[in-house]
Amino acid sequence: MKRVVIAIGGNAIIRNGQKGTTEEQLSNIQTCCTQIADLAQSGYQVILTHGNGPQVGNIVIQNDMAKPVIPESPLDICDAATQGSLGYLLARTLSNALKERNLTTKVATILTQVIVDPDDPAFSHPSKFIGPFFTKEEALEIEKTQGFLMKEDSDRGYRRVVPSPYPQKLVELEAIQDLASLGYTLIIAGGGGIPVINETGRLTGIEAVIDKDFTSSLVAENLKADAFVILTEVSKAAIHYNQPNMQWLDQMNVDDCKRYLAQGEFPDGSMKPKVQAALNFVEHTKKEAVITSLSCLIPALQGTDGTHIHP
Amino acid sequence: MKRVVIAIGGNAIIRNGQKGTTEEQLSNIQTCCTQIADLAQSGYQVILTHGNGPQVGNIVIQNDMAKPVIPESPLDICDAATQGSLGYLLARTLSNALKERNLTTKVATILTQVIVDPDDPAFSHPSKFIGPFFTKEEALEIEKTQGFLMKEDSDRGYRRVVPSPYPQKLVELEAIQDLASLGYTLIIAGGGGIPVINETGRLTGIEAVIDKDFTSSLVAENLKADAFVILTEVSKAAIHYNQPNMQWLDQMNVDDCKRYLAQGEFPDGSMKPKVQAALNFVEHTKKEAVITSLSCLIPALQGTDGTHIHP
Repeated sequence: MKRVVIAIGGNAIIRNGQKGTTEEQLSNIQTCCTQIADLAQSGYQVILTHGNGPQVGNIVIQNDMAKPVIPESPLDICDAATQGSLGYLLARTLSNALKERNLTTKVATILTQVIVDPDDPAFSHPSKFIGPFFTKEEALEIEKTQGFLMKEDSDRGYRRVVPSPYPQKLVELEAIQDLASLGYTLIIAGGGGIPVINETGRLTGIEAVIDKDFTSSLVAENLKADAFVILTEVSKAAIHYNQPNMQWLDQMNVDDCKRYLAQGEFPDGSMKPKVQAALNFVEHTKKEAVITSLSCLIPALQGTDGTHIHP
Repeated sequence: MKRVVIAIGGNAIIRNGQKGTTEEQLSNIQTCCTQIADLAQSGYQVILTHGNGPQVGNIVIQNDMAKPVIPESPLDICDAATQGSLGYLLARTLSNALKERNLTTKVATILTQVIVDPDDPAFSHPSKFIGPFFTKEEALEIEKTQGFLMKEDSDRGYRRVVPSPYPQKLVELEAIQDLASLGYTLIIAGGGGIPVINETGRLTGIEAVIDKDFTSSLVAENLKADAFVILTEVSKAAIHYNQPNMQWLDQMNVDDCKRYLAQGEFPDGSMKPKVQAALNFVEHTKKEAVITSLSCLIPALQGTDGTHIHP
């Protein structure tokens, strides 16, 4: 059975313009899990990772609004909470979808800590968007009153930015490998993993949100996945994006990838980390990575859709 | 190696009178993990379960206070969030404590759903205390404005009560058994597990907080634990509690247990579910259960402290 690591965005679960009600999140998760279960039915072992940008942003706001009565939690603990809540909803829904297809594979969710470097430049240059969108005026007010750093997110409005250090090592890798080798469908490394630093063998939490695409790439490499799929809003990556000469990419080799990245073809915080994460996997494993949308998942793995990054 | 299931209370992590700051919770978790790591060093495989009463109560308040801007989550999702946040802090701290003792056992946290009966009488008679304590006047105001049911908790003040259905089955049991048989130190079934109901094979969430002692008893039975320890504030259970003829119990057999329970010797929501959960384990497995305090954990397992319930 082929093993595929699939990374879904937190934005696939609370979509642009949605508030994030339980009904909205469950409906989006159902849509994701239907496609993923279809893929499992076609003979893949699925290892699922997910983002948490909108969800952890919501928790941070809940923490902030309730702080007169309930102590706030740091970002690493908020990340961990989203591994619990999203992991639960994904595990329950995916397990139902597998059962409907008479698949007997068991689903398990493992909390995942990820070691980062305390000297990562991300800590002095926060760049990861979390939480809801605000107008410029609201964003300035939030910067003033709450001390958060706010930036414009691809013309869609202003959002809080937090440090997004590079993932170095999955703390729970062996448990993940053990269950993967027993054939489990796994949900792991939610929100890019809970960021921790290793101080002479002792793990401590650190406030950050790790990019889930980079962590997923590390997962795919560590688990010797046959394929690595990064899901996004569009079925393919493009160069000259949103320009008259825009060109959708069916495939890129490592050299194309590096050239386009160097030319700034892919926007920060959006397609750029996905291409970079796919590139990392391809360079380290000499296997293929695919960037595509949820609805093109199966054709993309069959080779007829998506952007394929190959060695 | 002997396998022990240890159940710690959510109140051991946010203690009576504490607000639940990260510093408070980490300090309490450090205290727990020091004792548990000492026990592991003495030759036990530890399977750790934990409550979430104060923590899930805090999340519910955060949800409520932020609901003008962020949609509220139902209780099952809040339970799942506490499995994430507490599971993370426990896993990190316990893993550090094991490493300090040069133990190489790996720690993993598995999100755990638990099936309950939708017709459980608990749904019409909520009895599980969650969240912080309030005065009688505050409690009446909360009942009026938020529609929560509030009750007095053992003379310590008023708290919200929610349904606490009986746990029937651990959804992730096989993954838990597989990692347990590979020798992992596990953190599972946090907050008594995330409550779900089984509708003709399809799992759906339901709003409740399962009693962690009953779930822990089921865990201990399912994992064929050699010992089952329920930690509480006192080193032993007592009859005629807080009366002049109070008598601390070194041991009870099944018949004693049933008689004392029938006589109402143990307070609801406090010692009663612990004694009942211990009794369930002993009746089903013919092995011994122990009720004791954290500081007496090791002497209790050596047989020199705690209340021992035996067949």
